[in-house]
Amino acid sequence: MLMKYSFRNDYSEFAHPGILTALSEIGDTQFEGYGLDEYCALSAELIRNKINAHSADVHFLSGGTQANLVVISSALRPHEAVIAPGSGHIYMHETGAIEATGHKVCTREGYDGKLSVDDIKSVVDEHSDEHMVKPRLVYLSLSTECGTVYTNDELSAISKYCRDNALYLYIDGARLGAAINSPACDLTYADVAVLSDAFFIGGTKNGALFGEAIVITNETLKKDFRFYLKLRGALLAKSAVIGLQFRELFTDGLYDDLALRSNSMARKLADGIRSLGYNFLFPVETNIIIPVFPDSIAQALHRLYGFYDWQKIGDKTAVRLLTSWATPESIIYDFIADLFDLT
Amino acid sequence: MLMKYSFRNDYSEFAHPGILTALSEIGDTQFEGYGLDEYCALSAELIRNKINAHSADVHFLSGGTQANLVVISSALRPHEAVIAPGSGHIYMHETGAIEATGHKVCTREGYDGKLSVDDIKSVVDEHSDEHMVKPRLVYLSLSTECGTVYTNDELSAISKYCRDNALYLYIDGARLGAAINSPACDLTYADVAVLSDAFFIGGTKNGALFGEAIVITNETLKKDFRFYLKLRGALLAKSAVIGLQFRELFTDGLYDDLALRSNSMARKLADGIRSLGYNFLFPVETNIIIPVFPDSIAQALHRLYGFYDWQKIGDKTAVRLLTSWATPESIIYDFIADLFDLT
Amino acid sequence: MLMKYSFRNDYSEFAHPGILTALSEIGDTQFEGYGLDEYCALSAELIRNKINAHSADVHFLSGGTQANLVVISSALRPHEAVIAPGSGHIYMHETGAIEATGHKVCTREGYDGKLSVDDIKSVVDEHSDEHMVKPRLVYLSLSTECGTVYTNDELSAISKYCRDNALYLYIDGARLGAAINSPACDLTYADVAVLSDAFFIGGTKNGALFGEAIVITNETLKKDFRFYLKLRGALLAKSAVIGLQFRELFTDGLYDDLALRSNSMARKLADGIRSLGYNFLFPVETNIIIPVFPDSIAQALHRLYGFYDWQKIGDKTAVRLLTSWATPESIIYDFIADLFDLT
Amino acid sequence: MLMKYSFRNDYSEFAHPGILTALSEIGDTQFEGYGLDEYCALSAELIRNKINAHSADVHFLSGGTQANLVVISSALRPHEAVIAPGSGHIYMHETGAIEATGHKVCTREGYDGKLSVDDIKSVVDEHSDEHMVKPRLVYLSLSTECGTVYTNDELSAISKYCRDNALYLYIDGARLGAAINSPACDLTYADVAVLSDAFFIGGTKNGALFGEAIVITNETLKKDFRFYLKLRGALLAKSAVIGLQFRELFTDGLYDDLALRSNSMARKLADGIRSLGYNFLFPVETNIIIPVFPDSIAQALHRLYGFYDWQKIGDKTAVRLLTSWATPESIIYDFIADLFDLT
Repeated sequence: MLMKYSFRNDYSEFAHPGILTALSEIGDTQFEGYGLDEYCALSAELIRNKINAHSADVHFLSGGTQANLVVISSALRPHEAVIAPGSGHIYMHETGAIEATGHKVCTREGYDGKLSVDDIKSVVDEHSDEHMVKPRLVYLSLSTECGTVYTNDELSAISKYCRDNALYLYIDGARLGAAINSPACDLTYADVAVLSDAFFIGGTKNGALFGEAIVITNETLKKDFRFYLKLRGALLAKSAVIGLQFRELFTDGLYDDLALRSNSMARKLADGIRSLGYNFLFPVETNIIIPVFPDSIAQALHRLYGFYDWQKIGDKTAVRLLTSWATPESIIYDFIADLFDLT
Repeated sequence: MLMKYSFRNDYSEFAHPGILTALSEIGDTQFEGYGLDEYCALSAELIRNKINAHSADVHFLSGGTQANLVVISSALRPHEAVIAPGSGHIYMHETGAIEATGHKVCTREGYDGKLSVDDIKSVVDEHSDEHMVKPRLVYLSLSTECGTVYTNDELSAISKYCRDNALYLYIDGARLGAAINSPACDLTYADVAVLSDAFFIGGTKNGALFGEAIVITNETLKKDFRFYLKLRGALLAKSAVIGLQFRELFTDGLYDDLALRSNSMARKLADGIRSLGYNFLFPVETNIIIPVFPDSIAQALHRLYGFYDWQKIGDKTAVRLLTSWATPESIIYDFIADLFDLT
Repeated sequence: MLMKYSFRNDYSEFAHPGILTALSEIGDTQFEGYGLDEYCALSAELIRNKINAHSADVHFLSGGTQANLVVISSALRPHEAVIAPGSGHIYMHETGAIEATGHKVCTREGYDGKLSVDDIKSVVDEHSDEHMVKPRLVYLSLSTECGTVYTNDELSAISKYCRDNALYLYIDGARLGAAINSPACDLTYADVAVLSDAFFIGGTKNGALFGEAIVITNETLKKDFRFYLKLRGALLAKSAVIGLQFRELFTDGLYDDLALRSNSMARKLADGIRSLGYNFLFPVETNIIIPVFPDSIAQALHRLYGFYDWQKIGDKTAVRLLTSWATPESIIYDFIADLFDLT
Repeated sequence: MLMKYSFRNDYSEFAHPGILTALSEIGDTQFEGYGLDEYCALSAELIRNKINAHSADVHFLSGGTQANLVVISSALRPHEAVIAPGSGHIYMHETGAIEATGHKVCTREGYDGKLSVDDIKSVVDEHSDEHMVKPRLVYLSLSTECGTVYTNDELSAISKYCRDNALYLYIDGARLGAAINSPACDLTYADVAVLSDAFFIGGTKNGALFGEAIVITNETLKKDFRFYLKLRGALLAKSAVIGLQFRELFTDGLYDDLALRSNSMARKLADGIRSLGYNFLFPVETNIIIPVFPDSIAQALHRLYGFYDWQKIGDKTAVRLLTSWATPESIIYDFIADLFDLT
């Protein structure tokens, strides 16, 4: 029997139809290479307006790991290090991409996939002299790998600590849309721009064919950034293709609409699962939910749906389910019905 | 007055219409992430058939600089170095991307953008002990940055020398289509696969929206290659988007058709320029031509067309003109007519 | 009042007199540069005999951090990582030197500064695919940063696990003499050579003016090692100066004599401290001891002796005391007497 | 028959007797680790006085390649590159140590082992945009690998160009003593300090057991330099051993005396060779001389003396002869006599 649906990722479909249509309509007009074209210029302006940061630099590139490694390796001197939660994407799931550029990632376990000011402070306090790396940049994901979000209070406190302690604050926004459009998150895009030094707005996981937009508000980090993109192989000849996609995403609110729909599907799915008596490992806040099922039920579900196991807990298994802008509502009800039958 | 046309690059248009159509037709089918999807699998097979290398590994990624740095940094130990022509893309126009992964690029001037066996041998002979890097990989472009191609004899001689001297041979095929489809080139794709250890087939510069296909025939270089892609930020979540494009390019001969058309436009342009009494810096063999004009004419042309100056030679300027699959034939005649008027 | 004595390090004195005498007696004889001299050759042979590994390669270089980074960066491919205890010197006190060569260090807390097979296995099991680094080398210190040693059983189990799982085993022997000459350690130098792939024998912390001897028994790791030394700036022109010192250390058992004396002073010191009712954070096994004192006593001792605080534990402080080959026995009694007065 | 004498290097002897005596007299006094001791402090002060740069930072480390790679990798951002003569030590004879830290070395052939302002300018002018590295540091050797020196006019012009163009000027002073004490060189140590941003004073090649002193006058380059030393494995626990040696070298003019004697032996040797009718490849200015002999004579001399061939020129061979502070004058006359016999 074939798998009914995959909840493995939010990037399992090509792209939102509007984006594909826009690409098709371009024809063979010529454009400048390497991000110096009109589409990138326009999308950068749309983004600056959206985030209310009119002097921000915006760069387009192809993927999230690339965005993380370019920004971080550009911001740091050789002896400087990153502070990240142990669950952070750069620490666990990027094959040592940051270390490959020469920098240590110092971690704390954090809570719900998040770092607290105390976590950050404990790393800073531990690193006291030249026999240890010098922490210089805090890496956060918004939303996190656990599907959770930072509140304005939480992020503001981190931002203040960073500024008081000469730390850059960089935010991995692969799922920034899901975060900003979460009812649990009282942050706006403008807040994120004000509180951080750089972040990226993820297209790949929110309806684009591919592509991310790096936003830099810190003047020091802006300098020579196109060199850094090029030397890491991240300056695409046809950046215009990404620029055009972000034009679509940031015109008429498409980016938020897609994230809202994705979150909404996750919430319906979570409500159904909870109504059948199951709990979740982390608060349900965005389009990643991590319910805990008895092993037998998790295994039975694996025969019907695609998803990854997150963690074994005694005779139970926490599993990770992702929805996307494209998840059909009917599939949500199928899943809940199947779970009801198995329960 | 606006510029009539840009001869700056062969990647100034989005993509061939067939590719855009194929992308549009996908709908919201789900596919596996990170190149494990059916499109990548199918395109890899199409490529293996095309190059007659049935056990080759094929990987898709987003750009040429990225392809170069991933392959080269994966092939070398820390003390090992690359041999390249001084005009090689990795040496001059990738912002030190190879050095940024820790490796020296040793150059010889070569001829017509190409390396000879003697050039390679002179680098090898010069590096005799542990106070010097150990040359380990020869980097060639096919076609070259000068628009020229290697003949089968030339490439075979280099390949033999490399194998006799424990050097990998890696070919930058950003414009492989233009090379193979050049009348000056008696190499087939299969020859390239047999003679080299790894190469890439460029999509970006031959009609794709973006994307390149790395082909690895050497068993040692195959090992753990997906780790290398990931750690350099080159393993795209939506690799399927590239896979699909290569399906289009390698079905019904589209890849060759586009290259042939591009070469054909360049040849017509070169014939016209030559008929007006101008010479070329290098043999006209593919879609890059480098005529030499008096400064005044070069300057006048700059007011009408987009192109880059290549080199000042006394009171003359060698300029680089590129055609693409999309260059209208009418523009070729416009250029020749304008040049005639200026002459 | 001046400090009576420093227990901060075991490298606070220049060198054992025999070594200085040997250096003085050389005169202006000429020798070959870069470790190709007769002293290095002789000392390598003395070491090979001592460790009963007659085909081992031996290289001399100036310091421990350098030894660690040269060996580790030479052994690993770009995506490969190190497994180390969280207290390991490379992780905590080398300013990210390993990461600066591009490699992640994966840690487990371990016990008494040591890793167990289960610790190592848990790292290996966690790293399952190309989105994560590939653990490839286990780093241990012998003796550890906590002053403890591995038993033959412990190290043999680790060695077996490593060989069964394609992991290199590399041992930081900055204090190898102290370990081998510890009553708690039933390992011989020959055991260490047999069980590991590479290790270094520390001179700096056991009576040399400076210098360490890297021993490589694994054939793969031997290859091109002098290139690696050179490219990291570790191939000293006057390596002969280190070679000569190791001739002294490994003639007539000086290396062991110095370590035994150092351990013996530590044991006397520990016995005295224990007799006054204090406990230790870790077993007392070599020349590093970490007693726990009430804060007030620790502070009072700081006014008399040099040492570092290790850890705050409630209203107590664990402090680290090191002895060396040169520590006068009288100072041990002074310390105990002072502690008695303070108690 | 045994070789009479080696002219291969100026580091073939252990150390000047005064230095060995000083080391022997230390006894077992305790000192601080990692360069925080009184010897390093005193020698730094002696050097600051000698170079008349009272706010310079001085750091001691073990070798020249290490000094070069630590300074250069610390000064540059990832996309920045070095400008060096093609004969520069970092380019030819350090196994890619600079590239291993991620940076390209851009070369010009120069003249007599030296770079001119025009050479430097031509590299800067060539690098115009983000597709190329950004030249940021000029590397010179003083004296050069060819035995030549820069005059005050030459170095001042380079220094001015560097400051006008935001380039750091870094000088490899492995043989700085030989340069400053050359009759062809009108530079003082103070001039070197004023004209450059950082340089090192070589001990290894001028009588020390080992060790170099890095001098940093540029405020930006001073920052966090001890971190950089540590992360490259260059912060020796027993830096005091180097500090003490520099105390000897910079007390009572020993450093200059040794360099003068070395130069003087080279000049006598050169005068003798010239008197027999032979020419030199470069001006004879310091303790490296490169005479050109017929092949047969070069080969005959190889049977008597140790030296390296520099270059084949038709049926002649240019050979490199080095003298040191320890070269006996009698050996000079032996060589000339032997050459006379062979001529």
